Amino acid sequence: VKTDAARGADTSPLTLNRLSLYLRCLQDLASQGVERVSSKELAERYQLSASQIRKDLAQFGEFGIRGVGYEIEHLRDRLRALLGLDRRHGLVILGVGSVGTALARFAGFNQDGYRVVGLVDSDPAKVGRRLGTLRVEPVARLTAVVRETGATIGVLAVPAAAAQSSYDALVSAGIGAVLNFAPTQIRESRGVRIKTVDLRVDLEELGFYLAQAT
Amino acid sequence: VKTDAARGADTSPLTLNRLSLYLRCLQDLASQGVERVSSKELAERYQLSASQIRKDLAQFGEFGIRGVGYEIEHLRDRLRALLGLDRRHGLVILGVGSVGTALARFAGFNQDGYRVVGLVDSDPAKVGRRLGTLRVEPVARLTAVVRETGATIGVLAVPAAAAQSSYDALVSAGIGAVLNFAPTQIRESRGVRIKTVDLRVDLEELGFYLAQAT
Repeated sequence: VKTDAARGADTSPLTLNRLSLYLRCLQDLASQGVERVSSKELAERYQLSASQIRKDLAQFGEFGIRGVGYEIEHLRDRLRALLGLDRRHGLVILGVGSVGTALARFAGFNQDGYRVVGLVDSDPAKVGRRLGTLRVEPVARLTAVVRETGATIGVLAVPAAAAQSSYDALVSAGIGAVLNFAPTQIRESRGVRIKTVDLRVDLEELGFYLAQAT
Repeated sequence: VKTDAARGADTSPLTLNRLSLYLRCLQDLASQGVERVSSKELAERYQLSASQIRKDLAQFGEFGIRGVGYEIEHLRDRLRALLGLDRRHGLVILGVGSVGTALARFAGFNQDGYRVVGLVDSDPAKVGRRLGTLRVEPVARLTAVVRETGATIGVLAVPAAAAQSSYDALVSAGIGAVLNFAPTQIRESRGVRIKTVDLRVDLEELGFYLAQAT
């Protein structure tokens, strides 16, 4: 049995993204008072693959009992811990245009352990504006904001041309990971992981299927 | 050699997402006046995998010449056609809250062949509002909006509880594919493909790596 520590950085993003989905399913079942579920039942109920579920979970320990299945609350709590949901993660949003503003208000960014704790923009016209309980701070205060809030995740909502320098500034400020919405590739430094969300790529995926259909 | 038509719906989203990235790289090279590139050069320049590039492209025909590489403009145009970028795609956004509003203003949704052409909301307080050149329409007008604008892609920016019924309404209205921002699984019907963008899953991926690091 491999422990979490033995895995770590070599776990693929795709596996992790599936763990997030399994966690949702388990939370749904727990809210219905279900106590145990087999990989087969889980797969049928949520249109997943039973063998994939078993393979993914086996990477992190032995959760299931053959013929009995998984104990839902136990597995849910283990997945929550694996995905960092048992601790607080402060998010600092860099760039408070329409994307940054929508993200600041996004319920999913202010849920469980995750909270938007800082807003930073380079535009003097935006500095000082209030958004909910937060005030937009100038870029010169980025390091201070990260230190004062204990933020661990930076969110890049800046234009593509400003993405690399903004990432570098987040790294210098002591941020641990970055979610990037700028449509560009960023060079990683000091092991500060970048996850890029590129909505154009998603549109082009649909465009491919539409082009095939006609 | 397999033709595009011979492939089609069995091409994986991951392959398509890589094609989008290759296209960006080719556009970048073309803008610099470069005419040919080998898979090896492409890989080194943009931190990609040369064997993966060759494998992905080989699915759609023979683009490269051994020892010479790819003709950039030719390959770029073929990828653009594959990803539906040589035709117009109108987007109808359903749900004009903060997420829908940000998406309507998002440059990547109003670029190349893609354009936001319709905004629809169930909230009477939002109907009639202007956003750029568009006016928010009531849900009762959804089918009319799709017909009048020729929209092919629906964008779901509604709460999770409204996602399935909103998807069904888009299918009835004649939409060909749906980009879903509601954090829930939707049952596909009539072959109208759904791509779900779930930002919580991306946050939890970063949360995993942060939990490993400490």
